[in-house]
Amino acid sequence: MNRKPTIRNIACGLALLATAGAGPVFGDPTGDQTVDPLPAWNDGQAKQSIVAFVAQVTKPGSPDFVPPAERIAVFDNDGTLWAEQPMYFQVLFALDRVQELAPQHPEWKDTEPFASLLQGDVKGALADGMKSVAEIVMATHAGMTTAEFEAIVSDWIATARHPTTKRPFTEMVYQPMLELLAYLRANDFKTFIVSGGGIEFMRPWSEQVYGIPPEQVIGSSIKVEYEMRDTGPVLVRLPELAFFDDKEGKPVAIHQQIGRRPLAAFGNSDGDLQMLQWTTAGQGPRFALYVHHTDAEREWAYDRESSFGRLDEGLDEARDKGWTVVDMKQDWRLVYPPETR
Amino acid sequence: MNRKPTIRNIACGLALLATAGAGPVFGDPTGDQTVDPLPAWNDGQAKQSIVAFVAQVTKPGSPDFVPPAERIAVFDNDGTLWAEQPMYFQVLFALDRVQELAPQHPEWKDTEPFASLLQGDVKGALADGMKSVAEIVMATHAGMTTAEFEAIVSDWIATARHPTTKRPFTEMVYQPMLELLAYLRANDFKTFIVSGGGIEFMRPWSEQVYGIPPEQVIGSSIKVEYEMRDTGPVLVRLPELAFFDDKEGKPVAIHQQIGRRPLAAFGNSDGDLQMLQWTTAGQGPRFALYVHHTDAEREWAYDRESSFGRLDEGLDEARDKGWTVVDMKQDWRLVYPPETR
Repeated sequence: MNRKPTIRNIACGLALLATAGAGPVFGDPTGDQTVDPLPAWNDGQAKQSIVAFVAQVTKPGSPDFVPPAERIAVFDNDGTLWAEQPMYFQVLFALDRVQELAPQHPEWKDTEPFASLLQGDVKGALADGMKSVAEIVMATHAGMTTAEFEAIVSDWIATARHPTTKRPFTEMVYQPMLELLAYLRANDFKTFIVSGGGIEFMRPWSEQVYGIPPEQVIGSSIKVEYEMRDTGPVLVRLPELAFFDDKEGKPVAIHQQIGRRPLAAFGNSDGDLQMLQWTTAGQGPRFALYVHHTDAEREWAYDRESSFGRLDEGLDEARDKGWTVVDMKQDWRLVYPPETR
Repeated sequence: MNRKPTIRNIACGLALLATAGAGPVFGDPTGDQTVDPLPAWNDGQAKQSIVAFVAQVTKPGSPDFVPPAERIAVFDNDGTLWAEQPMYFQVLFALDRVQELAPQHPEWKDTEPFASLLQGDVKGALADGMKSVAEIVMATHAGMTTAEFEAIVSDWIATARHPTTKRPFTEMVYQPMLELLAYLRANDFKTFIVSGGGIEFMRPWSEQVYGIPPEQVIGSSIKVEYEMRDTGPVLVRLPELAFFDDKEGKPVAIHQQIGRRPLAAFGNSDGDLQMLQWTTAGQGPRFALYVHHTDAEREWAYDRESSFGRLDEGLDEARDKGWTVVDMKQDWRLVYPPETR
């Protein structure tokens, strides 16, 4: 897996600064020098709104002060913390698994969607939409123990490369969002992922890449079953959906797994809209932010028409309600972390 | 709700001591005086096994050292952290709710199990076993928003009294276990509840009473649905079970919600057996403990024949495998915290 000393150092540095205590981490506590906790963000409304909100809720004695235990921040993953084009990375993982498993499944040569996939026709295989995706996911994500699946994901994430940038997927994360995660944690926020992606696809690397431990990763899941074998107990992954963590599912999952309404929510698509609605409906100051993919040159530009990460209804509601909308092209000085090789 | 300054002070004091760093919190860091972190525990095998385990996994440089992020401790609730006789306290809550709601349900007069309940015949009402319990739970726990249910639970827990001791239920917690929770946290363990009881029945008071925040409370749950009303979004509780967190369900819930295998597990019944098996099947040192209810005088004495909290198979397996079994009568100097009134 890719080690990211730079990112971890930023987080650690901010944590040290945070021990100074009062207000958001923005200036060096010695007062001699100003340290910008969000250097990959250009100065502008988006950055200012983030810093102002953190100042508002962390200033002791202020009427809007929120105790650290209630500083919950939730982040979508695909398109919010890392890229999601040309398709969700977990779908790319599943496609790779089909190739890998094909020798054990001679019947796939004559069964769709596998037959098309094995002939390299991804579009044809996915023409059927969610039905095909679900079949591919179940065929590649179930039927093994949770420990076996974790090893498969860890191997893949350490070696696979993005089809167009050729970078490891763990370097397709957004540097400004890594800084934002670290900045919030330095201000005693507890950061959670709330993703439509699979929990067990994210947990093997979320701590190293995002600094988010497995118990703070919420996502979609398939059923698992406890089984006592001669070698001891295992949990076996079953080809059956347990929970789909998207749209209305996100506030439900937040409620079931966190049990507190978030103070701040970050997303990029209509799948995040209910999470942002639920967050901002709480009493007192709340913060909602959409990442708007406007940068065709450094990343991708898409919104109302995209099959992955469509942002349509959400964009209108964000403008109506005055939520922060990040214009990736204008607001981000950097998109990805500098290459480490 | 009952405020428990004493308990919180213990936790805080231990946390301060823990900043000394190396090894388990046991002695005053100045070296002048020995502070016992578990004063409600008599010296004996149970206490010694706890302290030895904590020393083993927290000593820097030791081959068995476990990094703080992996120090997960899971606790059953009913019969492990608080009492569960003459029946689970959540059942007592449900029975109180039936009385409260009866005026709005004239049909209950002629419908079992409600008719028997309203005549004061609890035994008759529950004669049908789980079917009756499920009907009573759904009738009293569903059909309102999550915010409304939280208020109902908070009101009840603040005012209801145990039928025989007449103490508030939040004082029917075990002082030795409160100390154990604080001791583990002071040694950088993250403490979780993993209970067959309802998540939303526990969360309104778990932080104040146990120091365990809502996001670390795992339990059984019913389905909730996101609904946009004129006044904003709400989550509505539906009369349908989402997850039953008992027996095989406990390792499943631990996996889905924590995503790490615990280092230590604490229970009191056969419903906890799979959680203890799953915990101790991990690599390296692991710890499993059963609370055995042996104290008919100060609490209750029950095990293999009890309808609530039966401990039969688990007691045999604990003895086979050398797990720690707390003999409540012998091992606990105190059972409940001193009365605050």
